[in-house]
Amino acid sequence: MSALECLLNPKKIAIIGASTNPLHAASRPLAYLEQHGYRGTIYPVNPRAKSINGTPCYPSVSALPETPDVAMVVLRHEYTLPAVRQLAEHGTPAAVILSGGYAESGTAGKARQKALVKAAGPMRLLGPNTVGLVNVTDNIPLSASGALATDDLLAGGVSLVSQSGGILGALLSRAKAKGIGLAKLIGTGNEADLGLTDCIEYLIDDPNTRVIILYIESIRNSTAFKKAALRAAEKGKPLVAFKVGQTEAGKHAAASHTGALVGEDALYDALFRQTRVIRVKKFAELLDTAGLLASQHHLNGKKIAILTSTGGAGALVTDSLNLHGFTTPAPDPTTNTKLLKTYQNVLTEIDTNPIDVTLAGLKPKLLREAAQTLLNSADYDALLTIVGSSSLQRPELINKALNGIKHPKPVIAYISPHAPHLVRTLNQQGIPSFTSPDTAASALRTLYDWTQWNAKQWQPKPTHTTPLPEYPAGQLDEQQAKQLFKRFGIQPVREIKITDVDNAAQVIQAAQAAQSLGNKVVVKVLSKQLLHKTEVGGVSIGIPPTEIPHHIKSMQTKIHRLAGFTPRQFLIQEMIENGIELILGFRRDPLGNAIMLGSGGTATELFQDTTIRLLPEYGKLSDSAARSMIYELKSRPLLEGFRGRPKADMNALVQTITAFSKMAVQLGDQLLNCEINPLFVLPQGQGVRAADGVVVLGG
Amino acid sequence: MSALECLLNPKKIAIIGASTNPLHAASRPLAYLEQHGYRGTIYPVNPRAKSINGTPCYPSVSALPETPDVAMVVLRHEYTLPAVRQLAEHGTPAAVILSGGYAESGTAGKARQKALVKAAGPMRLLGPNTVGLVNVTDNIPLSASGALATDDLLAGGVSLVSQSGGILGALLSRAKAKGIGLAKLIGTGNEADLGLTDCIEYLIDDPNTRVIILYIESIRNSTAFKKAALRAAEKGKPLVAFKVGQTEAGKHAAASHTGALVGEDALYDALFRQTRVIRVKKFAELLDTAGLLASQHHLNGKKIAILTSTGGAGALVTDSLNLHGFTTPAPDPTTNTKLLKTYQNVLTEIDTNPIDVTLAGLKPKLLREAAQTLLNSADYDALLTIVGSSSLQRPELINKALNGIKHPKPVIAYISPHAPHLVRTLNQQGIPSFTSPDTAASALRTLYDWTQWNAKQWQPKPTHTTPLPEYPAGQLDEQQAKQLFKRFGIQPVREIKITDVDNAAQVIQAAQAAQSLGNKVVVKVLSKQLLHKTEVGGVSIGIPPTEIPHHIKSMQTKIHRLAGFTPRQFLIQEMIENGIELILGFRRDPLGNAIMLGSGGTATELFQDTTIRLLPEYGKLSDSAARSMIYELKSRPLLEGFRGRPKADMNALVQTITAFSKMAVQLGDQLLNCEINPLFVLPQGQGVRAADGVVVLGG
Repeated sequence: MSALECLLNPKKIAIIGASTNPLHAASRPLAYLEQHGYRGTIYPVNPRAKSINGTPCYPSVSALPETPDVAMVVLRHEYTLPAVRQLAEHGTPAAVILSGGYAESGTAGKARQKALVKAAGPMRLLGPNTVGLVNVTDNIPLSASGALATDDLLAGGVSLVSQSGGILGALLSRAKAKGIGLAKLIGTGNEADLGLTDCIEYLIDDPNTRVIILYIESIRNSTAFKKAALRAAEKGKPLVAFKVGQTEAGKHAAASHTGALVGEDALYDALFRQTRVIRVKKFAELLDTAGLLASQHHLNGKKIAILTSTGGAGALVTDSLNLHGFTTPAPDPTTNTKLLKTYQNVLTEIDTNPIDVTLAGLKPKLLREAAQTLLNSADYDALLTIVGSSSLQRPELINKALNGIKHPKPVIAYISPHAPHLVRTLNQQGIPSFTSPDTAASALRTLYDWTQWNAKQWQPKPTHTTPLPEYPAGQLDEQQAKQLFKRFGIQPVREIKITDVDNAAQVIQAAQAAQSLGNKVVVKVLSKQLLHKTEVGGVSIGIPPTEIPHHIKSMQTKIHRLAGFTPRQFLIQEMIENGIELILGFRRDPLGNAIMLGSGGTATELFQDTTIRLLPEYGKLSDSAARSMIYELKSRPLLEGFRGRPKADMNALVQTITAFSKMAVQLGDQLLNCEINPLFVLPQGQGVRAADGVVVLGG
Repeated sequence: MSALECLLNPKKIAIIGASTNPLHAASRPLAYLEQHGYRGTIYPVNPRAKSINGTPCYPSVSALPETPDVAMVVLRHEYTLPAVRQLAEHGTPAAVILSGGYAESGTAGKARQKALVKAAGPMRLLGPNTVGLVNVTDNIPLSASGALATDDLLAGGVSLVSQSGGILGALLSRAKAKGIGLAKLIGTGNEADLGLTDCIEYLIDDPNTRVIILYIESIRNSTAFKKAALRAAEKGKPLVAFKVGQTEAGKHAAASHTGALVGEDALYDALFRQTRVIRVKKFAELLDTAGLLASQHHLNGKKIAILTSTGGAGALVTDSLNLHGFTTPAPDPTTNTKLLKTYQNVLTEIDTNPIDVTLAGLKPKLLREAAQTLLNSADYDALLTIVGSSSLQRPELINKALNGIKHPKPVIAYISPHAPHLVRTLNQQGIPSFTSPDTAASALRTLYDWTQWNAKQWQPKPTHTTPLPEYPAGQLDEQQAKQLFKRFGIQPVREIKITDVDNAAQVIQAAQAAQSLGNKVVVKVLSKQLLHKTEVGGVSIGIPPTEIPHHIKSMQTKIHRLAGFTPRQFLIQEMIENGIELILGFRRDPLGNAIMLGSGGTATELFQDTTIRLLPEYGKLSDSAARSMIYELKSRPLLEGFRGRPKADMNALVQTITAFSKMAVQLGDQLLNCEINPLFVLPQGQGVRAADGVVVLGG
């Protein structure tokens, strides 16, 4: 048996530190096991009690008559260490450490946690500082959560892995109230041993689990997480994640813009997106979304039929659906005729959507027939029924109408008045039910996106690459940076370097050669010392080649005045006038290295027009990933030929993004910081030009 | 007595069409009045019954022994007209017409509604097609809403005016479940007579109403609405609006961009903002927000103390608060010392926020003391307490801790598990309680914004203006448009007009005069026929004056080829190179005329960087309104001196916006369409330049 199998399906459970005082939290695990009818053996360990509620107690771990499958430790941390050591010595395969006072509480706690792991040896640990876990499928609670003080649990297809114990309890009680059935709930606590990813791996193979909710504070091992998430996606089992800490701003000081522009949260967005994890941003929408996904329907299109007996809520729901990209077309003539036949003695017109059968049409047989007609129409992809205040007095009407309705298309309900019993009943009948129109629409949108996603074949294959020659550590100068880009197939602007500005002949020669770059050129100082050369007047555009010598002199003077040193090296570059300005950057992060594409110039910062992707471990980003990055830019229309302008060279841009990703992957840990800014995209067939760049390499 | 006073506080109620069949909706009004203990006189009118449940029936309106204060009509529309006529003849002051089949159902229905209003004469009508109204303060339900089939109503300070009857019922039942007390609920139905604004006007003066929720489908009389809303703001009574139909796209075809760029919904945004109506965009947040405002606290700052016994929910709430602009600083040393004193035998460290007292600290006396300490700290502006799963078994702990706590600063609660009884109890105790962390934070933000708003003296004063001389109907050409702008003090670019391009001498003279405009100029075709002159090559920038004659020739040829006619008139304009490009436009709408400010060039469309304000009836927009428009632009940093560029002439821009608004107000109905695009804002002290413009005038 794996550790998680022991934890979720133990036949023999020891509770170390079980309390006789019913007001004490340490009394709860035993009480809950008994309350929920656990049929295995329980061994409470408490040296000061003979028995608790009739269950015999043992004075110590060593006094236990046999080795338990799992031990729950509810002692204060002072007593936990020896207990864990004894349990391990006894050959216990796994323990749940509910005790706190470890890594969550400072340096001393971190040391205690280290000692705990050492003492456990081969015994696997859940926690410490965990609320425990609940196997709802088989009614086995191994937890002290107050939410278990309920008569019975509701089994179903939604599982949860939570890095917070309080949230596990909250979701447990909320799911029951909503009638959303649960499978396995696991609180991972401090994750000294078993973590988020271990639990996901287990639940992917749990036949009772149809959807896995993840409540995430931070992902400690992103490589393992990616692997598990990709396996879940491959198996078609949705992971629905809520990440707390959306406001934690990225604090990456950097010589480039990429660090400052993209926060930690955008990286989580990229991670979830690239591993097909569904991210829910509102906590209140988490359970409803998972409940809908667990109903295991597919939503193959965006046309929704709304069946209602109350006009106001119909308008409200229509609005929410439209805001989430759905349409609500009127019934086609055939459907219309069928509906009128159903309602022949009740209604004279049914030609709009929402299909409002009015109070008079609120009859189970008719409603059920109308629902079937709408589901059978090729014009609709799903049915949303609205339950109004009239159903408060006669809930049987709507129950009869919808109970057991079977169709491959989703049927969901929006409950307009306060009617928790209806929400519960309908959810249990397999009709996902919502009390917020906005949540109904957003969950439906998630189901649609998931269906589309899931339909695609998708198996990224690792490809190995040859190692790169060594580069020196430190910052490259602009010209070196662009030469590095060129090695990977990214075209830089043409340029002439002046290595010594005091060499008059060289300057004159450069000015003459610059004629070949165009009537007007760009003059730039070349120096690693200046991170922001524009701000000290180190960049001039539109300079006629003849004026270069004079211009360099005055630039030199200005930089001396503003930056306190006299530059000697300059670049003369071709001036790009018909390109669209972008920025392409690289960022290092514990979640994984990433590349960012953004609108160039002022737009990047003003309009936050950026998009980001994590890099694969081998190879490069795919063309389709590069295209999807471009697609996400708000300024995309500019590239597509905005207002009669020429279309930009999209293929070259795609090739540039993948080339940039390939470079970042190959350089690996060597690459500390990297950015092409600006990157000009020329009209179709003319490629791109990297006009400036930053590269910082590690040792 | 006013009509609404009769409707809300009747002593004698006639129910025309009261049914004896308890399954029929027409039986409900009488049943609900009796169920909720109405103490006045009820006269059911039904020719086929002697009495209903012991209440004597009358065969017709004319048979009534006295004139009722209000009549409810629950007949089918065929019988409603004669009943209304008789009621009016009887001198009944007001009637509630629950019957449907009027303006909501096509042309025939519209005619019926007209006839109904005529038949009513001086009698005031609520409806037709209304769910009726409920005076919760005095327990008088005049409605057929199924949501009234409840044992008792919960009185409080939240009133509602709803254009949808179903939504009224939904909010009635939801408010009761949450423990949010209501005052008056009015469904306005088709608003054939009494409408949204009449109800607002009444409720502003209702002493039991502290907050007014508006559920709006459309505002029929925006002038009256504005007046009522401003009076509510003046009285410090918040209006909280939900507007259904957010997705209805503006369908204003226009020669300018303003129509296409700004949808109907943005105008409602502007209307609500300018009349201090609080807009809630998520239906599920409506009641919670109103409930918090009705608690009548002020929130004077953004620093929130969080008191919790469960860490997970603390992190969740912190995140939501931060997302809504709040901060959660750690307690200052003094507060810290006091907290440690309270918890001296329980906790050793309380130096972070959320202040986590853990399960051990969940004791009413200690919690209450800690809450008082936090509220008394000058470092906090409000207290948010979190109720965790442990309170499920012992709800008395949290009730005892918070019950009757009094402080000028708001105290609210977030309930982590499913615990509807706790939500209800706490709300009734005056502790607004939330089940969604996001809603808690957004409602708190609304309270903060309202407090700031309300603190400001604010009484816009109408100023009359002199009439303008007549302009011809139709579209002005570009030069005429800019001359009109100039009359109002908006500086256009300098330009030279070529009236006949075939007059070679004139062209040469213009080219010579153009030297005074700069080394490079703009050449434009001048024609009312061409709405989009750029797209046919009718605008060239950066032309040296010497090349003007040649350039005009080739422009003429190109336009002939692309647009099919040969233009004769051209403009030579100075070229603005150091300005920031904006767009300033005018839009007509039933909600009121409005002006729009946006980023110029491609940014307007790509990044939807626009802001809009409704125009006053007299005078012009204030300087502060103009400044707030500028402030809302995402591209504002550009104007403030982005990355070392010069600051733009903000004062001149403010003056231009107010001048443009003055022009639009003065031209009134005469102005059909108007736009300055581009409007260049030059560096400080140099003003603005209107570089192009559209003006279309009516007859």
